[in-house]
Amino acid sequence: MFRSNTCGELRIQDKGRNVQLAGWVQTIRKYGAITFVDLRDRYGITQLLFGEKVNTQLETTPLGREFVLQVNGEVIERSNKNPQLATGEIEVDVQSFTILNRAAVPPFTIQDDTDGGDDLRMKYRFLDLRRSSVRRNLELRYAVNRAARTYLHEQQFMDIETPFLIKSTPEGARDFVVPSRMNPGQFYALPQSPQTFKQLLMVSGYDRYYQIVKCFRDEDLRADRQPEFTQIDCEMAFVEQEDILTMFEGMIRFIFKEVKQLDYTDPIARLSWEEAMWTYGNDKPDIRFAMPLLNIKKPDTVFSDRADHRALIEGANFKVFDEAETVLALAIPGAAAYTRKQTDELTEWVQRPQIGMKGLAHIKYLEDGTCKSSIDKFYTPEQLLQLAKAAHAQPGDLIVVLAGKEERTRKAMSELRLEMGERLGLRKPDEFKLCWVLDFPLFEYDEESNRWVARHHPFTSPKPDQIETMINNNPVITDAANYLSHPYAGIKANAYDMVLNGNEIGGGSIRIYQRTLQEKMFAALGMDKEEQQHKFGFLLGAFEYGAPPHGGIAFGFDRLCAILGGSESIRDFIAFPKNNAGRDVMLDAPASIDEHQFEELQIRLNLKKE
Amino acid sequence: MFRSNTCGELRIQDKGRNVQLAGWVQTIRKYGAITFVDLRDRYGITQLLFGEKVNTQLETTPLGREFVLQVNGEVIERSNKNPQLATGEIEVDVQSFTILNRAAVPPFTIQDDTDGGDDLRMKYRFLDLRRSSVRRNLELRYAVNRAARTYLHEQQFMDIETPFLIKSTPEGARDFVVPSRMNPGQFYALPQSPQTFKQLLMVSGYDRYYQIVKCFRDEDLRADRQPEFTQIDCEMAFVEQEDILTMFEGMIRFIFKEVKQLDYTDPIARLSWEEAMWTYGNDKPDIRFAMPLLNIKKPDTVFSDRADHRALIEGANFKVFDEAETVLALAIPGAAAYTRKQTDELTEWVQRPQIGMKGLAHIKYLEDGTCKSSIDKFYTPEQLLQLAKAAHAQPGDLIVVLAGKEERTRKAMSELRLEMGERLGLRKPDEFKLCWVLDFPLFEYDEESNRWVARHHPFTSPKPDQIETMINNNPVITDAANYLSHPYAGIKANAYDMVLNGNEIGGGSIRIYQRTLQEKMFAALGMDKEEQQHKFGFLLGAFEYGAPPHGGIAFGFDRLCAILGGSESIRDFIAFPKNNAGRDVMLDAPASIDEHQFEELQIRLNLKKE
Repeated sequence: MFRSNTCGELRIQDKGRNVQLAGWVQTIRKYGAITFVDLRDRYGITQLLFGEKVNTQLETTPLGREFVLQVNGEVIERSNKNPQLATGEIEVDVQSFTILNRAAVPPFTIQDDTDGGDDLRMKYRFLDLRRSSVRRNLELRYAVNRAARTYLHEQQFMDIETPFLIKSTPEGARDFVVPSRMNPGQFYALPQSPQTFKQLLMVSGYDRYYQIVKCFRDEDLRADRQPEFTQIDCEMAFVEQEDILTMFEGMIRFIFKEVKQLDYTDPIARLSWEEAMWTYGNDKPDIRFAMPLLNIKKPDTVFSDRADHRALIEGANFKVFDEAETVLALAIPGAAAYTRKQTDELTEWVQRPQIGMKGLAHIKYLEDGTCKSSIDKFYTPEQLLQLAKAAHAQPGDLIVVLAGKEERTRKAMSELRLEMGERLGLRKPDEFKLCWVLDFPLFEYDEESNRWVARHHPFTSPKPDQIETMINNNPVITDAANYLSHPYAGIKANAYDMVLNGNEIGGGSIRIYQRTLQEKMFAALGMDKEEQQHKFGFLLGAFEYGAPPHGGIAFGFDRLCAILGGSESIRDFIAFPKNNAGRDVMLDAPASIDEHQFEELQIRLNLKKE
Repeated sequence: MFRSNTCGELRIQDKGRNVQLAGWVQTIRKYGAITFVDLRDRYGITQLLFGEKVNTQLETTPLGREFVLQVNGEVIERSNKNPQLATGEIEVDVQSFTILNRAAVPPFTIQDDTDGGDDLRMKYRFLDLRRSSVRRNLELRYAVNRAARTYLHEQQFMDIETPFLIKSTPEGARDFVVPSRMNPGQFYALPQSPQTFKQLLMVSGYDRYYQIVKCFRDEDLRADRQPEFTQIDCEMAFVEQEDILTMFEGMIRFIFKEVKQLDYTDPIARLSWEEAMWTYGNDKPDIRFAMPLLNIKKPDTVFSDRADHRALIEGANFKVFDEAETVLALAIPGAAAYTRKQTDELTEWVQRPQIGMKGLAHIKYLEDGTCKSSIDKFYTPEQLLQLAKAAHAQPGDLIVVLAGKEERTRKAMSELRLEMGERLGLRKPDEFKLCWVLDFPLFEYDEESNRWVARHHPFTSPKPDQIETMINNNPVITDAANYLSHPYAGIKANAYDMVLNGNEIGGGSIRIYQRTLQEKMFAALGMDKEEQQHKFGFLLGAFEYGAPPHGGIAFGFDRLCAILGGSESIRDFIAFPKNNAGRDVMLDAPASIDEHQFEELQIRLNLKKE
């Protein structure tokens, strides 16, 4: 062993001990004939004192930042104590030292506030990983890993490894494929999730399964997606939705307690998908702040059980509202005093292509109780006041109104709500608010192919009381224009998402476990018998031999760690992440392969002409 | 929840309770107007009593084996208790029941002694996994996983995930590759191990890393290899070989204790590679039994520090021995009474192509102290007796002698030793004997390319006192015939294997951490500067920024579990294994992929004509 102690370990009680330390040179400070060196390792920093005797040796063998140093010396009390540091009361009076390895000058400083840009830090990730901010992220990740395993073990879950070289059954996302040399012309696929395997394990009677496991999706990468990502993947047999919600509320509370020392004792809100969309315009609402939407007007075909407030705007002959499918309002606390410039900026914000609205109307609900509005040509002060009050505005608030097509308008208003929440400081990274979103639609309509697609995945069960509806109706859509009146449009999934601070951190469902229902589902998604058999024959087969009722959930481990760490970037919580082009810039991967690899695999390139 | 209790839980103390159980029908036994059903789940078996009232319902809705059944009933005391069963004192008097799912007749019986052949069980692996013998294997695997994690956590190791989509740098084994759609013409590789990443983590200061992680090798599969396999992968900084041996002796003892309730308190033997080869003919000796080889004669070029016993056979003018490079003897306890038929069978055994010897000489060391031998034409009784005694034979033993080329003869004798150990019942699956094998040669000579190859891998350090030898000599072999006299031939690796019952369960090394030494190593393996930079530029770069001394080890998790489970087949300890052709016969993978997948990946098939 190269050391007797770590750099985070020595205290005033160790005074007088002879110790051996090894670590990296963080800083060097010369004061005349003596030198102070901060020596760093994973556990902390210890100050070294190079007194006159050894200091002369430093002249012949000078130290530099990031040198790997081993020292022998005596623990002494510091004259100048540093209460910021756990080892701040002592220093080590160096008697001898060995330079274990030298270091070139790093391309950026190894500090929390580094001067390194993103690309440089990714290229030299092995140096970036030395920064204590990055190390804390990986430590948090390990703590979450530990906590999840501990909880699940105590609940009798078993970690069972599922294979990585499986069969390509692209549904939704693209598979990464792996050519098989031993089976020329054939390919394995990397799993997008262990979904079918964990279901088979339930059929096999394993009852409570979990795995913290890498999954793969070959998708064009959005800002914060990775081609390989980690899931906490779980499945249970003999359960209903309520059992799963309870079990995993327990897990997340346990993780909060273990990792953040936080007692999350509040009940975890449960919103239906409709309620979330209605109130927040979003199926993963950030409920750290209120700011509910006011549904002034909506098409008849959606949220059919809910009444809008169209009376507030009707009869004014304001074409923009009258011709819009959907009109939504939002009260922004304390923003009535916005200047023209500020309201113009909001208008421009919603007009950006990502948001895509034509414009924005506003009503200032002034402190004196009166209203000033960009649409007061069309509405009386009383009408404006009524609208403001319906939007739960208080005097001093600004009410913004968007109008347009249902889907785009709702999404735009949801984005605007989040943006204003951010600007108002209502989205605190150290505050945590969980909720469940339930009762998703089972299907989405795909216009291009005029058929249903699975909103979650093809293994999700409908609500128990809608199984008959599904079995007894033909999934084919004969009247594309009125797809919403097809019986399948109203079928709700026995599915649930766990949402933390506006991010979906986990999602799952009660599964189909009856062969006939699974076949009906595949048929609804446009798969004929032959394709069903080719892709999922093993699962349909398994359902014939005594499949129990079962369901599960998968947590996005990278994102969960990021949010618990107060960040929205998952890359900061992955040891060796890829960039947005799917490249590992440190390895310079992917890369070309050798000719003999092509030969052995019996494939060749077929590059498109530019 | 579909149940109040599991099928392994109820005891006599629960008598009178109303309970709800769910599980699989194991057996059905009708006795007139009543029926007994054994209900099974992961936790056990509970007997159900269908009394007269519910029994009539069984006539309209009959049960079958493997049906999924839910029952409500009262716990009652059995009249006919079964002490073999944890629940054997009670049964559940069924008041109502629901068939949750039916089951077709399974293609084989779900019992420990199943009638299913290997292929059938692999195709219906989800049914095979229901057998309690298979379930116990996976439970043991999970227990080993837990124990390893617990120990490593307590020793301050951190689980850090390394990437699966990396760069192809084939060294020895073949990589599986993954075409990148986003980077056309380029490929990722799946890791053969996280080797370079764990070394980078040491450079990054993470100090103690572990991972239980899937690795991939595209090799022609021998009987008991899988293309994807799991390692317990570990690395430590600021350590010497002794530190690693001590740490992982601790881990294996902890695993024995936790998983097998076995106090492995014996010291763990340490053999040099030379000693292992000399005494057992094998670098992973099974030391559950002794039976050491007698090195009668060996070439001068190997084991140069050791003296053979050639005087025992010299001067007899026996051509077979005189012309052989190597002559080895082995005493087989108690086999002096072998008949002609039995000794002939041994001769045939060593003549099989897998062993490849020309023949076998034998000496019967009779109980009366005299010798009878197949070679007594050439040797006097005194000479034979001397030979028998040198082979540590006792009266009653049979001494067998093999002669031929060094490598083949040593291997043959090692195989024969294992075979005889097996036949004599000396290799007990429930006895466990560990040893370390140390001081491997750093290089092996590759005749075809007339250069060195790394015996372990290119990151293994030579022994500290041989670093200079390596740096100061040219690795090029100018005299192929005398490669053994090249200074590199004598360099020993700072490497170690842990061997359990004759199986290598773990192996590792102290790593090179100096750029110049690493470059010298790459050069010795025939890599020019450009190739070094292309394949391992990131690692060479990392060594410039303060790399600490470090080393590590990786355990073959599948094999470790198999041996602890008393089996030598790793497949029985993997939930979804592949067959010897690398196929998952349940999924029918690998398989063809769609034309649009080829188009998107910009590759095509290039199948060889048969």
